[in-house]
Amino acid sequence: MNKYYLGIDLGGTDIKTGVIDNDYKLIAKHVIPTQAKRSAKEVISDMAAAGKEVVSMAGISERDIIHIGIGVPGAVNSLKNIIIKAPNLNWHNIDFIPMFKKHWDIPVFLGNDADAAALAEVYAGAAREYDNIILLTLGTGVGGGFVFDKKIFTGCGFGTEPGHTIIVVDGEPCACGAKGCLEAYASVSALIREAIKIMTKYPDSLLHKLCDGNLSHINGKLIFDAVKQGDLAAKIIVDEYVKYLGAGIASLCNALRPQAVILGGGVCQAGKPLFDPLNSAVESLIFKTGDGEMPPILKAELGNDAGIIGAALFGIG
Amino acid sequence: MNKYYLGIDLGGTDIKTGVIDNDYKLIAKHVIPTQAKRSAKEVISDMAAAGKEVVSMAGISERDIIHIGIGVPGAVNSLKNIIIKAPNLNWHNIDFIPMFKKHWDIPVFLGNDADAAALAEVYAGAAREYDNIILLTLGTGVGGGFVFDKKIFTGCGFGTEPGHTIIVVDGEPCACGAKGCLEAYASVSALIREAIKIMTKYPDSLLHKLCDGNLSHINGKLIFDAVKQGDLAAKIIVDEYVKYLGAGIASLCNALRPQAVILGGGVCQAGKPLFDPLNSAVESLIFKTGDGEMPPILKAELGNDAGIIGAALFGIG
Repeated sequence: MNKYYLGIDLGGTDIKTGVIDNDYKLIAKHVIPTQAKRSAKEVISDMAAAGKEVVSMAGISERDIIHIGIGVPGAVNSLKNIIIKAPNLNWHNIDFIPMFKKHWDIPVFLGNDADAAALAEVYAGAAREYDNIILLTLGTGVGGGFVFDKKIFTGCGFGTEPGHTIIVVDGEPCACGAKGCLEAYASVSALIREAIKIMTKYPDSLLHKLCDGNLSHINGKLIFDAVKQGDLAAKIIVDEYVKYLGAGIASLCNALRPQAVILGGGVCQAGKPLFDPLNSAVESLIFKTGDGEMPPILKAELGNDAGIIGAALFGIG
Repeated sequence: MNKYYLGIDLGGTDIKTGVIDNDYKLIAKHVIPTQAKRSAKEVISDMAAAGKEVVSMAGISERDIIHIGIGVPGAVNSLKNIIIKAPNLNWHNIDFIPMFKKHWDIPVFLGNDADAAALAEVYAGAAREYDNIILLTLGTGVGGGFVFDKKIFTGCGFGTEPGHTIIVVDGEPCACGAKGCLEAYASVSALIREAIKIMTKYPDSLLHKLCDGNLSHINGKLIFDAVKQGDLAAKIIVDEYVKYLGAGIASLCNALRPQAVILGGGVCQAGKPLFDPLNSAVESLIFKTGDGEMPPILKAELGNDAGIIGAALFGIG
């Protein structure tokens, strides 16, 4: 008999639900707006209804679902099963599971959305060959998680916060309130901040042309396009970005000793021009014992579905 | 019936052997010189003989020993049970266990000496109440380990290298070949390096008097003594030291999410004047979820015996 698992990727904008089969393949997907201004009670009621809807879309029955996993955009204490805070939803100390079970009495597992994405890559994505990996998602911030022995590593209740590895004491301010976090150097926001600084210094850079003179149009793709065309300013921007990202990855590897590092987020579309210098940067900094301590750095495969697939995997991994 | 375990702390200078009972108490201890210039074969033969000697000193018989654990001053691949390298012994790729078993056929567990110290603090020292801790030993370098679920966390074969968390991209050169590692800021060697810089800037500092004008006499104790007497230069030295050490601890906590951080090494004798500002520094930088993420920072209790006790615990933790 086939087994099915339901994943819910709860975001500030959308609630994404999906069913995976026992090969961890997404067989049905359904997206509704979160309408995050409403109470947790109303949102949770919609989550249960959307879950039932996607089960029907998958052509199976509710009884075929072994369990439900929820990926939450915020801090989950997975030992106490409490959502401590989810700022985009304005949720604080939500005892989620009993509230959800009023609508659907089924085993429910809670976790962080970035941890879900890490788990998804191990079971169904770029890290299928590995048991221990770090995922970093380079977006507005730097999220991610650590999977150890094919399970999410939650430490004493919370997961790894790889974006908040401090790589520059007294460095750039970070959204978390600290200074010098990896997120303040390796997020796309940081890349663009630094790009604008460098462009101001080099008014002849091709980048000015590529963004039609409008600095607010700068993005990762334009920067890597300019590198391909031999633009020096763009090369400086990428070199600096790689230096900081590489230091963060090396530092995390020295602490967590993963078998592989998986990178997600749009900037990874750059491919070799990002990954080749990044590999060299990490290799030059990682602690060496002489026995294969340099883990491969791979591109995440699952994109936006990672959150749903990974949530469904809570309780498995 | 009482159970006994034998621990061997293999160092570049001494081989320390000891027997612990099932309360993890050291009941006998024996120290012999390593004479590290000899071959591994000769050193291993001495280790076995010293182990048998300490068993007899403990008033028990070899059959009472459940297993032997060895703490190695270097990189051990604990999945392959190979000593990859131990620079102070000039050992490379030593397949230790069969060599030891020629002298004593008993279960043998291998591990890193800093990991051993971390394990010892959890079972028999300052971290008895905890399952998940980071130990940092602030000495010539910064060693340490991560214990998770009362077991040494080895990642994919090697343990956590907390001293090689990178806290300053492109920072001070570290003995490992990278730049900006915690070790390059929080070791006693780094403390003294910075002290000398600050003293040169402040020729009126009390520190000049305390070290009789001989900068090579500067040590951690003198610096904290000068702080107690209100010396500004000494206060600047400690403030800077705490800033870097605090950032490293916060960063490691964000990655490893321990319940407590244990600090060892002579500089910890300073007590409150070190631990109070350090707590504030870590608290200001650690990633906050609002649910007790600030682990206590405690002084290690076992001193030089930690290595023996912890080695004996390999195979238990």
